[in-house]
Amino acid sequence: MTKNTYAVIGSGALGGLYGAMLARLGFDVHFLLNSDYDFVKKNGLNVESVWGDFHLSDVNAHASTETMPPCDVTIVGLKTTNNHLLSELLPSPTREGGVILVLQNGLDVELDSAEVVGEGRVFGGCCFLCSNKVGQGHIRHIDYGRIVFGQYGTVNDAMTKVGGQINADFNAAGIDTKFSDDLAVVRWRKLMWNIPFNGLSVALNASTKEIVENDAACQLADDLIREVHAGAAACGVKIPDEAIHITLDHTRKMKPYDSSMRLDFLQRRPMEIESILATPLRAVQKFGYSMPKVEMLYQQLSYLDAKNREAKGSCEDQESVPSR
Amino acid sequence: MTKNTYAVIGSGALGGLYGAMLARLGFDVHFLLNSDYDFVKKNGLNVESVWGDFHLSDVNAHASTETMPPCDVTIVGLKTTNNHLLSELLPSPTREGGVILVLQNGLDVELDSAEVVGEGRVFGGCCFLCSNKVGQGHIRHIDYGRIVFGQYGTVNDAMTKVGGQINADFNAAGIDTKFSDDLAVVRWRKLMWNIPFNGLSVALNASTKEIVENDAACQLADDLIREVHAGAAACGVKIPDEAIHITLDHTRKMKPYDSSMRLDFLQRRPMEIESILATPLRAVQKFGYSMPKVEMLYQQLSYLDAKNREAKGSCEDQESVPSR
Repeated sequence: MTKNTYAVIGSGALGGLYGAMLARLGFDVHFLLNSDYDFVKKNGLNVESVWGDFHLSDVNAHASTETMPPCDVTIVGLKTTNNHLLSELLPSPTREGGVILVLQNGLDVELDSAEVVGEGRVFGGCCFLCSNKVGQGHIRHIDYGRIVFGQYGTVNDAMTKVGGQINADFNAAGIDTKFSDDLAVVRWRKLMWNIPFNGLSVALNASTKEIVENDAACQLADDLIREVHAGAAACGVKIPDEAIHITLDHTRKMKPYDSSMRLDFLQRRPMEIESILATPLRAVQKFGYSMPKVEMLYQQLSYLDAKNREAKGSCEDQESVPSR
Repeated sequence: MTKNTYAVIGSGALGGLYGAMLARLGFDVHFLLNSDYDFVKKNGLNVESVWGDFHLSDVNAHASTETMPPCDVTIVGLKTTNNHLLSELLPSPTREGGVILVLQNGLDVELDSAEVVGEGRVFGGCCFLCSNKVGQGHIRHIDYGRIVFGQYGTVNDAMTKVGGQINADFNAAGIDTKFSDDLAVVRWRKLMWNIPFNGLSVALNASTKEIVENDAACQLADDLIREVHAGAAACGVKIPDEAIHITLDHTRKMKPYDSSMRLDFLQRRPMEIESILATPLRAVQKFGYSMPKVEMLYQQLSYLDAKNREAKGSCEDQESVPSR
């Protein structure tokens, strides 16, 4: 393992878990916390995980990134709905260089980070993770956990070397991680799941299990998967055809799970519909292609999101983020 | 006015209203009643209407069509979800001839009646009506009420003459009615409203007002209207382009209204998704055309309908039917 130091921006179900795994192995990890700051500073982090439970008593907790040292790797684990905060949060830990690893859902989600530090310093990654923050400083990781990441923008050798080091760190820490040479494929492959299952779980008020077990809903999920697959191809991103049925088969075998978007909706938080649906729609449109059912899903979610926020009045703490 | 006798199959918010209007003027009208039979037999029909309130004390109420005399015109005012009953209900009032006027929502809804009595004896009509059955023998007609009807199948002179008589009867009774020489145009024109607004009112759990006032939902309604308009054209049914924006403008000006499909859904009754969505989808498919967003709406409603029925366990009396 390296001597890399890590910053975790958004220490919820995702950032909190991965950060704690790294810290457990001895990496110097700095956590940005919001509502849990006092609790974690005093009591540490409690992780229940399918990879083994553990407690981290001595946590480098920060209420602001201003108190963080310069870090080699800054992990962005916020919801994309909070990306407007990145221009404030990223400069401090990246002030002497270092790279950013954006572990967010959607397409081109790295752009906001790249605008702060420059494109050549950013990795993006997808997490296949079922994890929830169930209490203050308390993370429950119930299934999966794999990360696949790659370079954002033009690939270069220096970043390839850094990516390899991060990959080694994560794997040493027990996190199933893969460093890919094609981030676009990784992103679109994940969208083939996120668009239908995050989207329909809200639009139909259904669990993944309810969707795959109903003929009409499952057919619609399949249609959406095919649209995304074809949309990726229209953008020049070739994903093998087998991925279509694998996505459905895999979901049929998943433990019943509330998608992150459904949890956000039920808790009246803003949903990640821009990064997960609107950005891919715009991307394919540039190539003269359309995804009508994906577009309809986006229109429906936009309506439901607006109604949900009206009912709520304002938003709450965004730390509690399962990431699938 | 003629001496036509009328049978009303399904004396709810629609059939009850129009039948009562005809009976008030002196036509011999026979009403098929279900759960309201005893009440109406004893107390008559109470109509609150934007066309004027009235009470009909002496009602020819029937608990079965077996007791009905042969009638010149049999009005079908059931929900299409009950069309499997028509083979039992229609033979008696039509046993000595006479015609059928199918006032149901959707496309090709006349087929089930035509299979009982033959194609050359059937009219179909669309009702632009906001009416509810609010209690036993109690109908509240809150807005609109126009009927546009025409011959089902091949147009012939004898039926044209009968249609003209029915038109005269209805207008004499104070019902705004028009006899059209092109039923297909009438049906598809109505679908341009029914598909988006019945469908989205359930899929988005929204009133017509909420749909038109939200940018994303209104855009989706517009997309659906355009798909139906183009779908009609693919089937050789030409509807003027102005109908697209007229449909939206008109809905913007409507009193806030729960569509019949939404009421069915909220009361856990089966929804008319086959006649309103599935039949038009199959019709355009025959011409090699597709309506992807309409198809998605149908898939979503199929899921929601299945879930709704699971929750309910069984169906109830279908008489209380607002018809828009």
